[in-house]
Amino acid sequence: MRQAKQERMVGMFLTEPGVVVQRELPIPVPRPGEVLVQLRATGVCGSDVHYFRDGRIGRYVVREPLILGHETAGDVAAVGEGVTALRVGDRVALEPGIPCLQCAPCREGRYNLCESVSFMATPPVHGAFVEYVVHPAAFAFPLPDDVTYAEGAMAEPLAVGLQCISRLGDVLGCSVLVAGAGTIGQMAVLAARAAGAASVTVVDPVPYRLQVAREMGACEAVAPCDLDAGRLFDVSIEASGSQAAASLVMGQTRRGGRIVLVGLSTKGDVCIPVGSIVDNETDVLGVFRYANQYAKAIRLMASGVVKTLPLIGETFALRDVGAALAAADEHRDRCVKVLVLNSGKA
Amino acid sequence: MRQAKQERMVGMFLTEPGVVVQRELPIPVPRPGEVLVQLRATGVCGSDVHYFRDGRIGRYVVREPLILGHETAGDVAAVGEGVTALRVGDRVALEPGIPCLQCAPCREGRYNLCESVSFMATPPVHGAFVEYVVHPAAFAFPLPDDVTYAEGAMAEPLAVGLQCISRLGDVLGCSVLVAGAGTIGQMAVLAARAAGAASVTVVDPVPYRLQVAREMGACEAVAPCDLDAGRLFDVSIEASGSQAAASLVMGQTRRGGRIVLVGLSTKGDVCIPVGSIVDNETDVLGVFRYANQYAKAIRLMASGVVKTLPLIGETFALRDVGAALAAADEHRDRCVKVLVLNSGKA
Amino acid sequence: MRQAKQERMVGMFLTEPGVVVQRELPIPVPRPGEVLVQLRATGVCGSDVHYFRDGRIGRYVVREPLILGHETAGDVAAVGEGVTALRVGDRVALEPGIPCLQCAPCREGRYNLCESVSFMATPPVHGAFVEYVVHPAAFAFPLPDDVTYAEGAMAEPLAVGLQCISRLGDVLGCSVLVAGAGTIGQMAVLAARAAGAASVTVVDPVPYRLQVAREMGACEAVAPCDLDAGRLFDVSIEASGSQAAASLVMGQTRRGGRIVLVGLSTKGDVCIPVGSIVDNETDVLGVFRYANQYAKAIRLMASGVVKTLPLIGETFALRDVGAALAAADEHRDRCVKVLVLNSGKA
Amino acid sequence: MRQAKQERMVGMFLTEPGVVVQRELPIPVPRPGEVLVQLRATGVCGSDVHYFRDGRIGRYVVREPLILGHETAGDVAAVGEGVTALRVGDRVALEPGIPCLQCAPCREGRYNLCESVSFMATPPVHGAFVEYVVHPAAFAFPLPDDVTYAEGAMAEPLAVGLQCISRLGDVLGCSVLVAGAGTIGQMAVLAARAAGAASVTVVDPVPYRLQVAREMGACEAVAPCDLDAGRLFDVSIEASGSQAAASLVMGQTRRGGRIVLVGLSTKGDVCIPVGSIVDNETDVLGVFRYANQYAKAIRLMASGVVKTLPLIGETFALRDVGAALAAADEHRDRCVKVLVLNSGKA
Repeated sequence: MRQAKQERMVGMFLTEPGVVVQRELPIPVPRPGEVLVQLRATGVCGSDVHYFRDGRIGRYVVREPLILGHETAGDVAAVGEGVTALRVGDRVALEPGIPCLQCAPCREGRYNLCESVSFMATPPVHGAFVEYVVHPAAFAFPLPDDVTYAEGAMAEPLAVGLQCISRLGDVLGCSVLVAGAGTIGQMAVLAARAAGAASVTVVDPVPYRLQVAREMGACEAVAPCDLDAGRLFDVSIEASGSQAAASLVMGQTRRGGRIVLVGLSTKGDVCIPVGSIVDNETDVLGVFRYANQYAKAIRLMASGVVKTLPLIGETFALRDVGAALAAADEHRDRCVKVLVLNSGKA
Repeated sequence: MRQAKQERMVGMFLTEPGVVVQRELPIPVPRPGEVLVQLRATGVCGSDVHYFRDGRIGRYVVREPLILGHETAGDVAAVGEGVTALRVGDRVALEPGIPCLQCAPCREGRYNLCESVSFMATPPVHGAFVEYVVHPAAFAFPLPDDVTYAEGAMAEPLAVGLQCISRLGDVLGCSVLVAGAGTIGQMAVLAARAAGAASVTVVDPVPYRLQVAREMGACEAVAPCDLDAGRLFDVSIEASGSQAAASLVMGQTRRGGRIVLVGLSTKGDVCIPVGSIVDNETDVLGVFRYANQYAKAIRLMASGVVKTLPLIGETFALRDVGAALAAADEHRDRCVKVLVLNSGKA
Repeated sequence: MRQAKQERMVGMFLTEPGVVVQRELPIPVPRPGEVLVQLRATGVCGSDVHYFRDGRIGRYVVREPLILGHETAGDVAAVGEGVTALRVGDRVALEPGIPCLQCAPCREGRYNLCESVSFMATPPVHGAFVEYVVHPAAFAFPLPDDVTYAEGAMAEPLAVGLQCISRLGDVLGCSVLVAGAGTIGQMAVLAARAAGAASVTVVDPVPYRLQVAREMGACEAVAPCDLDAGRLFDVSIEASGSQAAASLVMGQTRRGGRIVLVGLSTKGDVCIPVGSIVDNETDVLGVFRYANQYAKAIRLMASGVVKTLPLIGETFALRDVGAALAAADEHRDRCVKVLVLNSGKA
Repeated sequence: MRQAKQERMVGMFLTEPGVVVQRELPIPVPRPGEVLVQLRATGVCGSDVHYFRDGRIGRYVVREPLILGHETAGDVAAVGEGVTALRVGDRVALEPGIPCLQCAPCREGRYNLCESVSFMATPPVHGAFVEYVVHPAAFAFPLPDDVTYAEGAMAEPLAVGLQCISRLGDVLGCSVLVAGAGTIGQMAVLAARAAGAASVTVVDPVPYRLQVAREMGACEAVAPCDLDAGRLFDVSIEASGSQAAASLVMGQTRRGGRIVLVGLSTKGDVCIPVGSIVDNETDVLGVFRYANQYAKAIRLMASGVVKTLPLIGETFALRDVGAALAAADEHRDRCVKVLVLNSGKA
């Protein structure tokens, strides 16, 4: 095993709600099957913002100082024993959820449902706002030369968008409604367009996000109140987590249509009516993270079919992660995705 | 065209809630592509009971005297021009919904979603509590010798059970939970067992129905309160229409599981939580009637894979349809299915 | 019913191999459910060329003078009784196969497998090299303003390309190999790109066709001998009908891959090895024409996702159909699709 | 880790074609995640017979003395570090193929296509004609009390039968043709019946096998020459590996039908015609071993849906493996499956 020379590194720890502090810690050493990766770009996810602001998301509570960040890409700095598919210097995107690969869901190809998954930046597992991480080589995906680190970081939310399409099966030629133009909604737009939707309509109350949705390929992007109430779509994707949006997609999907639910409410239960599902013989399909989407995400970015970079509104240095998280929280009206860039020792 | 000799027939009309009167009316004449069928056995459906008791089901209101009944089988008595697949004397089960066959859902094989469907015993379309009906030959399915008229009538609710399985795709080796042991729930039990479910568990508050469910092949049949709250099933079928049952199936289906919703509430909205669907990446699949299930239902009964007759608890003559409807309404604790048998002129 | 004023029209009849003659015949009158369509653009298909050259394709023999052509679009000139979805003046593309809509495959949504289908330009059914045809309204699809008649004609081969993708289910992010760059191969390229294939590689011996394939969106287009023999694709589409191509796709599709067979041999049997299908657990999926693809094809052209016009290499007037057929036969090295344009009385 | 007391064990080695010798060897020690299993019952597979007779199957050649046998069940005798799901004394069936669980096919749930699989009794990996083996706990499946060791051994070929049905998706109510009534064909019969096929027809030239097929649930079992040549089936399963059978299933599957190919030829190439696949728009689906079928197989045997024991025609002691292999080779006309039973030190 070839080890990086550097021995200490900087990590950014959430110590209490709203407070991120810089600490030194040892650079970890890859075990067999693992790689050490020097991170280069890491996106700020909505979940990071929740932990930053509230110290918790539902039953997940930050009890010890935690490194956030799970949308990330970098360079392989060392490889553990038995790793043959990657070499030092390879540029990689890291799939942040590490499943056990032994249980029934894992063996069946739905490893996103593994009960033993270890997921970056979900307490107590540390994340990517740090200089180096070790990661299983099987979940480190090589980036072709023409895919940037920032795009590598974007592979994570894109994987969620692609999971929506995998669950739907086929949207070629369909009319698609996407409710919610946050990162996941935007990725759903990209994925639906890539998969040949004849039209994609986005609803969101924030004008800036609608403008970005148009850049992402939405044919129409309107405030919810501006959507013709009688219009019916072949396929709908609920990516906002709000009751209003859930009700909207239920009411505006045609008979025999398909609905993906990917948005989770952060305040109170959101419900959908059984009567509509029965009468319309609807397919309602949940999406929880993703499985087997990373390689596909990278191929689609490399081939130019999917362009994620317009989503990135602001960038920060690693030492400014606190400011990055605050920006992601506060600038919703003018920024969809905040990116953290590591440079040297940060 | 060969015409039956008889010229007048008896029909049983619902004239107001709770009142069924016998009237004479002309025997209809089959048009091109149609057959005249002398009906022999007709089941009483829950929808018939609703119309009988309340004069309406939701937006469907009985405004003119209406002949109820849509689960029916009989003998071909005459054939219209151009009908070659059926002959006078053939025993047939009638699929009660006649779609347009021209619209997009029809051409796509989901004719149960046709907006122009004409469905027996749905106002203002008359049903099968009558001596003769005309019907498109394409929706009259021959019964092999060893399938009785009563089984032919049972093909209708069985088709709903089979539609549940078609929507699910594959239940071989799965554990299946069925909520609600009315006719549709029982048919779901039959269909799930036929399709190779490793176990079928039924919940219903009525002891008699649980006993019938065991005869239908349920491995377990218990009151809802007796189901172990921590147990998770691969697949669940909600066939009761109640909020309690909807909540139960949502809570007791495993991650990555599949849920069919086929029960419609008759009082108030029933809802299911989005959070559970997302977290568990569940498939929630509505079932509205059925398409392309009649021939399959008859083949399964003919081959002995499926046995529907234990469901039939009481039988009545055609002239006693009023009593049959009242019995179906009142004897829920000791009868799942009431059958009306025509004999001669009734 | 509103009838076109003109009473006689010109049709181009294949009277013997290589001979097309112009004849006058009455303008037909639409029956209930039909429309009369004044045709504007009609493509020459490979099957037209076979009939023209040989007077037959396999068991289909031209015994009486026959009007060829089945890729066609025009204007509604009159509507039959009961037609409400179309009006005189509507621009429409005509789906050339008219299934019975009554049989089991039709009711199941696979009407392309209807044994009673009537298909334009398949003896003894006349085709579209004529001024007017009557057609069921259900198989006449409105063209939006920005879709030309020529594109309407192209909806037919595009539907075959889309059927390939429907059979495959999902090609998002896949590497796709297309063998054969005739019209169907080109349409497969368009459809695969529209559906989000990460790469499409085309093999064909004719340089001109490879150049067109690149315009259609192929990432690579090479002679068969120039394809790296060790390269494996996720998905392959055999659109040439040759043994060499069938062997090539069998050998260059990865384990667990999917293969569509859409090309039919015109000389001798083409075979594929069982051993490879078993060892690789391959899906081999036949494609025979298409079902439920026309509306999708038109939506995809209208939305700009799919551009078919670069395929059209030469155009002829209706009276020059003989020359058009000869050109389609002889100019394979410099033209993929020949189009016949009607103007006025031709 | 709790270790079995015994330190040496007996294994039966194929040293050259037709020669099996008994040798002592050390009882292996389970590593982390593994269990030591004292084997109780092991079936003889056709592949074992090929190795025994010819010393090879295609590219797999027995170069060093090899222990055959891969259909096996026994008792957990010791557990390696970290194994929590199994305990000493648990009765288990062993899935014989151990995939890497890291590669793309493994992560996608198709681990049967793993290029790094280690499969029992495939040179140079030893098999189960031995007293003890170590095996990953994740591939040792607990047997309920009412499932015998012999049935546990039968889980292996049953898994192949179930894989056929998984690939087909849904056979409820279908007519199914099975070509070849060896072990795999018989298991296909069981699986098709379990999944609700309305009829299963078996063809095989050996009368004894046809008789067993009837016991397995075949509705008809006839010599190939006795099958009505015009009869068409919804679904066909080719389990013989012969050209005649491959041609038969291609010719006797209806349009739009589905064909599984699971039989491999041991002499020469077997081919199927492209023209038929295209014209009939057939699905031709390869089956290579199985993935995710063991737990299902055991549940189906435990629930009584599937009964495999009638297949077992002869049994031998472990020390008589040579005779068992010879019997499996020579008694094809009066035995489908030979079973080897371990008792004590053999």
